[in-house]
Amino acid sequence: MSTAQSRSAVGLVGLGHMGSVMAHHFLASGREVVGWDRRPEALQELAAGGGTAAEKLAEVASARVVISIVFDDDGTRAVTLGADGLLEALPPGGIHVVMASVSPALARELAAAHEARGQHLLAASVFGRPEAAESAELLINCSGPASAYAEVEPLLSVLGTPRWIGDEPAQAMLVKTMGNSLIHTTVEMLREMFRFLKAGGIDEQLAKELLIDTLFPGPIYSGYAQRYIDDPSSAAMIDMARKDRRNCLEAAHEMGVDLPVIRFLGEHDLP
Amino acid sequence: MSTAQSRSAVGLVGLGHMGSVMAHHFLASGREVVGWDRRPEALQELAAGGGTAAEKLAEVASARVVISIVFDDDGTRAVTLGADGLLEALPPGGIHVVMASVSPALARELAAAHEARGQHLLAASVFGRPEAAESAELLINCSGPASAYAEVEPLLSVLGTPRWIGDEPAQAMLVKTMGNSLIHTTVEMLREMFRFLKAGGIDEQLAKELLIDTLFPGPIYSGYAQRYIDDPSSAAMIDMARKDRRNCLEAAHEMGVDLPVIRFLGEHDLP
Repeated sequence: MSTAQSRSAVGLVGLGHMGSVMAHHFLASGREVVGWDRRPEALQELAAGGGTAAEKLAEVASARVVISIVFDDDGTRAVTLGADGLLEALPPGGIHVVMASVSPALARELAAAHEARGQHLLAASVFGRPEAAESAELLINCSGPASAYAEVEPLLSVLGTPRWIGDEPAQAMLVKTMGNSLIHTTVEMLREMFRFLKAGGIDEQLAKELLIDTLFPGPIYSGYAQRYIDDPSSAAMIDMARKDRRNCLEAAHEMGVDLPVIRFLGEHDLP
Repeated sequence: MSTAQSRSAVGLVGLGHMGSVMAHHFLASGREVVGWDRRPEALQELAAGGGTAAEKLAEVASARVVISIVFDDDGTRAVTLGADGLLEALPPGGIHVVMASVSPALARELAAAHEARGQHLLAASVFGRPEAAESAELLINCSGPASAYAEVEPLLSVLGTPRWIGDEPAQAMLVKTMGNSLIHTTVEMLREMFRFLKAGGIDEQLAKELLIDTLFPGPIYSGYAQRYIDDPSSAAMIDMARKDRRNCLEAAHEMGVDLPVIRFLGEHDLP
């Protein structure tokens, strides 16, 4: 593979829902995508869409920039530090963009490991529901070396609006985990509001019009209020959200910051 | 006073900040305002602005519609049921519009007392900071007899946007007290967010841009975030807010609804 080809290629580890939408956007922008996933069917889908399915994880490092977006800390650690992983495979100067929601502590640890090899880690956390991913309107907060950000900014712009927020790799993940905690609290407040007003004879649609659309417009409050109205069970916590909340509380503990409401929600598994 | 004069007059009990701004708007709209307050200086100010200062509370009932906006339940109870109060003074068909934030239980109790005299109570709760009052952009949620609302709607339109939300006098106060609880929770979440991100090297202005202006735009989140940035001590609870939260939790208890986060904030006196 020539250097010119390498520069227009991107490696992609993790072809789940978000990863496969990203692959689609990169391919549509004229880039080559070398992707890897544990699941053969995900690789087949990538190849069918015009991408290159890597047989081994290390092959994605034929691109100078590799994005990983896998489920959690364990998965991200495995594809980075494990056998056949990115740390071994990336060339000096290579950039690993971590787009999964991982703990700030792991972002720091992996960044140090990459730097020791002359590689760079850029933490890039994403806000946006699947529809925002489909329409390339993700908000992407990045932290890590400014030079690495400058190199990947055009790539991330294909997915939405990237922004560099600081030198420390943990920072993008602090923003992500706090944003998710604000979202969880929103969902619990919506549940308390709807139950309270319903008991007073005010139905959900009217409650949304009176309090949410007026005082709390915007994607999270109005969006989740409508989802609750359509299906109250959609407001329950899921494992990925619980993981993000644990990451938030662990980071707060490490930094010596008390988060009373977020801790209360965690202790009571709310919403 | 002729009937024609009475119809274009409005009684106003409570000439504090909100009451005096309301008097100003009513006078500017060409209405006569007969006002009363415990404080002689508030009465002098009303007279200086073209209103009529009542020497005794009962005189405000020369108007067929009387608005009361006093500090709390005790104050509203006193001007309604006390000696020389509105219950005695209002004629049959007279309308008492309660614009203070009172407990849903008191709204129900006073409505029953008025109905027993052939009078009507309309609960009208207000959202909007002082600037919104000045610019006549208050959101006014009303509950009680639809006929009483129809009669006072033109009057309330002078202050902002009124809306009738139901027959039960408690309903407007349920909306108000829950709205305030959502605001208190917002302020606490902003405090937790700012402290957490600051510890990670992300300053308040950047935090607001990344999480609030994107995911939580709107008057409450963006407004209070800016107030916190300008002066973190402005985010502390005040007695009036504590009173509103107690009203919310008492109403929830009466209705058999659990509000875990609002209760937690109350027990820990947060924010």
